[in-house]
Amino acid sequence: MNSTATSQGVKDAMLRISEYVHRTPVLSSESINHLTGCNLVFKCENFQKVGAFKYRGATNAVLTLSANELQLGVITHSSGNHAAALALAAKKAGTKAYIVMPNNAPEIKKLAVEGYGGIITFCEPNQAAREKTANEIIDKTGATFVHPYNNKFVIEGQGTAAFEMLETLGYLPDFILAPTGGGGLTSGTILAALNFGTSIKIIGTEPSLAGDAKISMNTGIIQPAFPQQSIADGLLTSLGSMTFEIMQNHISEVLNCSEESIIAAMRMVWERMKIIIEPSSAVPLACVLENRSKFENKTVAIIISGGNVALNKLPF
Amino acid sequence: MNSTATSQGVKDAMLRISEYVHRTPVLSSESINHLTGCNLVFKCENFQKVGAFKYRGATNAVLTLSANELQLGVITHSSGNHAAALALAAKKAGTKAYIVMPNNAPEIKKLAVEGYGGIITFCEPNQAAREKTANEIIDKTGATFVHPYNNKFVIEGQGTAAFEMLETLGYLPDFILAPTGGGGLTSGTILAALNFGTSIKIIGTEPSLAGDAKISMNTGIIQPAFPQQSIADGLLTSLGSMTFEIMQNHISEVLNCSEESIIAAMRMVWERMKIIIEPSSAVPLACVLENRSKFENKTVAIIISGGNVALNKLPF
Repeated sequence: MNSTATSQGVKDAMLRISEYVHRTPVLSSESINHLTGCNLVFKCENFQKVGAFKYRGATNAVLTLSANELQLGVITHSSGNHAAALALAAKKAGTKAYIVMPNNAPEIKKLAVEGYGGIITFCEPNQAAREKTANEIIDKTGATFVHPYNNKFVIEGQGTAAFEMLETLGYLPDFILAPTGGGGLTSGTILAALNFGTSIKIIGTEPSLAGDAKISMNTGIIQPAFPQQSIADGLLTSLGSMTFEIMQNHISEVLNCSEESIIAAMRMVWERMKIIIEPSSAVPLACVLENRSKFENKTVAIIISGGNVALNKLPF
Repeated sequence: MNSTATSQGVKDAMLRISEYVHRTPVLSSESINHLTGCNLVFKCENFQKVGAFKYRGATNAVLTLSANELQLGVITHSSGNHAAALALAAKKAGTKAYIVMPNNAPEIKKLAVEGYGGIITFCEPNQAAREKTANEIIDKTGATFVHPYNNKFVIEGQGTAAFEMLETLGYLPDFILAPTGGGGLTSGTILAALNFGTSIKIIGTEPSLAGDAKISMNTGIIQPAFPQQSIADGLLTSLGSMTFEIMQNHISEVLNCSEESIIAAMRMVWERMKIIIEPSSAVPLACVLENRSKFENKTVAIIISGGNVALNKLPF
């Protein structure tokens, strides 16, 4: 599972998972184009199963298991969309997903994982406890660990979102912007785009309050995650070794943006496009809003990563 | 403009307006099907221009004007989606829209109409003042009055939503449910469906707190609007003579539902489908939730009428 993710691997993933995932629509908005001065298209993974692109990578990873591995189940530690995605992917494949979750995870996340049939084990909310708990379960069950992003098949699966988008568009945009947390979506998008040539500029995007990827790229050293302060709760992790290497080799830029811009961008999409996106998904548009001249009159494709929001805790 | 709306008129409207309106998607949700026990599809007019099906009827009405009429402009009294729709339809046709609006209309509605280039005249918030003000403008400008629903071309234009939906589906659903306010969408849907035979049962739906259409159908006499208490603010008007006649001739049923069910249905669509719908659009699903056995295992098509919601005043 630790071999390198490749652009051919994204094509393989397309064949492997297409009948299991939604081919989500690519939408645009005249009024947002007018407001931003560029031609934007949005690949809507908020409409994906479990409400996030994470279902692509989880499904691809599960489908590459041998019959014996599959029978023993899969395991991850996550409290976010990857946990829900792995739980559903395992359920659809007829096996078990063990999810290690910090005991302070929000109730709504627990319910989502349970709703998809995941078997939750709670642990203390720190990295050492997570790993210890996961290893104990692996020792006992033989389950295969599926990392949220530092995994060849996960990265290649996430890349299918951009691959589908480029197929649907029928032209090559000037830019693709993806939200960058652990880098699974960003590196998968890079590999996907390489199948269509090298003219598209891929840009990673993250909140300034979680700006570790930008510094990692600038310094050449993976930075630890920032304190958990951004509203974009899907982007608070640091890069992985595999995702960082792909980003270093193929892209030159990560943009940051303010919390105010994230909220403004999220509201713009809700109001103008009538679709529900989570704060992390608003980060690429927030970066467009903060870098108007860079994108003016360009074609800019954005991956909307997900739509899982607590409706009783909206920022507006 | 006062001749009768017909099913042929809906087909004519399809040809007339199709290049000016969005062909909106028909979406479905596995999890909502699971929760309701029936097979639901949703025609998503929340993705229509101005965020509502009203753009269809307004566009159809504007496009049927003579060159001379067009030059003199159009006028309506409305503070809702029809006002915004007529303003944009007029702008796209290169003419003026005069909008008579009560002086207590919410700021957000004024801004929407102004944003689409409508010329607003405020009046006292009562029917007599609205009509007097409109008539004064008509005397002065020669503008053509476009009623929000009691107008042949408006009704036929609204019918194109259901016509497109039935084309897209490729099969005939057991039921089509539409939200019923003035009855423009409901009567247009009836006429649209007649082009596909008589097997589909069309049902009007409204909040119990705005239950005038149900009583109108039961008594054979158009009832005045109820006091304005329902959250479904698009459905507070009484039926018009033209819409009532079509409903009387072709459907047997209007269902009512509680405010609690409307909010639950709205939340269900937001959370499960990741799309933004206004309270009025949640009324058909609310009626499905309250009449589970009636719709069990049936194919049920719902027209989502719009997605214009004040995000700072959500009911959850």
